[in-house]
Amino acid sequence: MKIFYSDKHAAHDCAGEIKDGELKPCFENPSRADAIDQAFKQNGFDTLYTPSDFGLEPVLKVHDADYIEFLHTAWQEWQAIGRKGDIFPLVWPGAGMRREVQPENIDGKLGIYAFDSGTPICAGTWGVVYQGAQAAISTADAVMRKQTQHAFSFSRPPGHHAMPGQYGGYCFLNNAAIAAQYMRDNGAKKVAVLDVDYHHGNGTQAIFYNRADVLVVNVHSDPKHEYPYYLGHADEVGDGAGNGFNVNLPLPKGTGWDKYLPTLNKALHSLEQFAPDALVVSFGADTYKDDPLGFFKLDTNHFIEIGAAIAKLEIPTATILEGGYAIEALGDNVIAMINGLSAK
Amino acid sequence: MKIFYSDKHAAHDCAGEIKDGELKPCFENPSRADAIDQAFKQNGFDTLYTPSDFGLEPVLKVHDADYIEFLHTAWQEWQAIGRKGDIFPLVWPGAGMRREVQPENIDGKLGIYAFDSGTPICAGTWGVVYQGAQAAISTADAVMRKQTQHAFSFSRPPGHHAMPGQYGGYCFLNNAAIAAQYMRDNGAKKVAVLDVDYHHGNGTQAIFYNRADVLVVNVHSDPKHEYPYYLGHADEVGDGAGNGFNVNLPLPKGTGWDKYLPTLNKALHSLEQFAPDALVVSFGADTYKDDPLGFFKLDTNHFIEIGAAIAKLEIPTATILEGGYAIEALGDNVIAMINGLSAK
Repeated sequence: MKIFYSDKHAAHDCAGEIKDGELKPCFENPSRADAIDQAFKQNGFDTLYTPSDFGLEPVLKVHDADYIEFLHTAWQEWQAIGRKGDIFPLVWPGAGMRREVQPENIDGKLGIYAFDSGTPICAGTWGVVYQGAQAAISTADAVMRKQTQHAFSFSRPPGHHAMPGQYGGYCFLNNAAIAAQYMRDNGAKKVAVLDVDYHHGNGTQAIFYNRADVLVVNVHSDPKHEYPYYLGHADEVGDGAGNGFNVNLPLPKGTGWDKYLPTLNKALHSLEQFAPDALVVSFGADTYKDDPLGFFKLDTNHFIEIGAAIAKLEIPTATILEGGYAIEALGDNVIAMINGLSAK
Repeated sequence: MKIFYSDKHAAHDCAGEIKDGELKPCFENPSRADAIDQAFKQNGFDTLYTPSDFGLEPVLKVHDADYIEFLHTAWQEWQAIGRKGDIFPLVWPGAGMRREVQPENIDGKLGIYAFDSGTPICAGTWGVVYQGAQAAISTADAVMRKQTQHAFSFSRPPGHHAMPGQYGGYCFLNNAAIAAQYMRDNGAKKVAVLDVDYHHGNGTQAIFYNRADVLVVNVHSDPKHEYPYYLGHADEVGDGAGNGFNVNLPLPKGTGWDKYLPTLNKALHSLEQFAPDALVVSFGADTYKDDPLGFFKLDTNHFIEIGAAIAKLEIPTATILEGGYAIEALGDNVIAMINGLSAK
């Protein structure tokens, strides 16, 4: 197990997010990665690797160039017109409005590039999400170079909600999709992504929806009643060449291990049938019973079982941290997952 | 001139709106209508008519039934799950996401029915917007019954941004579109809407975009750099049967009377050529030089000229208040418009 960590994440530290109609402190904040870092140190995981810099090229393989340009310049543009707080979108092209117009103003651009009002951008955001993507690519690279069967990246913010050209759900760059594409471009003919975050990985699904070379499998909370609502339904099976290469296994709120395990086994069965050369796991610890944003009932020990079940597939695997907001248990939950993945 | 006013508007009084990334006091608040009411009293406009109740039928002629049901029940649904503040949307279906799914949860529904994060819903919103629509219908009814050549409705919040099935820009029910449709259904074969608010009336345009029986003409700030960004461009000329029956005349920020007047004259020329049986004017006083949300440079006297130019068309006209946020001048500006419209 090779673990990558960028300690530069703390610069993405926004003042608040909009949730339940109120401006609240950000659930997705630096204490998440700090808690994991501390737990690692306390548990003898003393070798953390610093990500290499692979540049923007692998990022631009899954994200639109104009979107990346926007993320890169949004904060300067916001500040240049005297805005004081974090960036939040104001208006977006709803039904019957035009997406293809190119507004010259930052508020107009925000509606094109955001799908969510609860995801602030602040001064350090771009630098941090760039590092997070590099950490994800580093795991993919370590696995593809056969340095390790398993690599793990813990960065923040998460990535799996990020669409080809839109941010939301705390996510800006889709680290898992970038890692999967990097694997495709570096020797793997078939790659699978298994997303076991509490929330559906709508961005990862969207990025690979028309492709047969990347299977995307999600086990998640039913979007009928949970974020991100507008993707993640069971009838989304892929399109065109990708038909049959997208699997959604939504579960109701309140799901415990008894119902989670058989669904996870279904997901693993899909992976086995696909027989990928490499695997990316989008790991969210927000399936944990006390997570403030998740409503499944898994316990810390269950993450060992999830990790071990994935390890049994014997596929070279890059695991990437997505959500997980129960800070007090986050370190233990991540270590449980890593211990499971490392099981023989 | 017959003036309709519902003094029940004060119940739509939300705690704040999201603007420039910050939660700020609402620009669109009860003091707007109170200021106009007071100016009317001080200037001898002592007969204000209470709107009649025409029910929901004329509203449902331009708005989707599921949207109206949502507006009607949103606050109860929000409160039922323990939410404390005003309603704001969290996430919406961006590019590549599905609009047709029917989320069961209020946050999921909000993304379907809102196109804007700066338009709060609070306890009194539905009752007030219902009254506003009734005031608009009352003006249309008074004109169609030939009780008066000119009727004026001042209600709040405004309406012209409201789409067939989405709210935004402080607007929930499209009062102008409802009035225009009411005119069509009560004797007018051809109806025109002239929108002279600072912002483009995207909702009114969208509602009549495929129709040849309602001409929609907008004089407004160029959406390349101004709200609502995604509609209001000069190349939007109507579609299908409506091709040629939508006219957008965008003007740059900073426009003063010298440039406004020739554009207004173009708009009036379009109206003359169409020769409607009845006219709805969406009047925004946010073209005023000191408006905090508008960046044109009209003075109070210019509203007299706008009103008089419209009156010269000699078309039965229902004028409906849209925006205008310079509270200290709002009463004078509305009276100037009414004096212009009343000119012989």
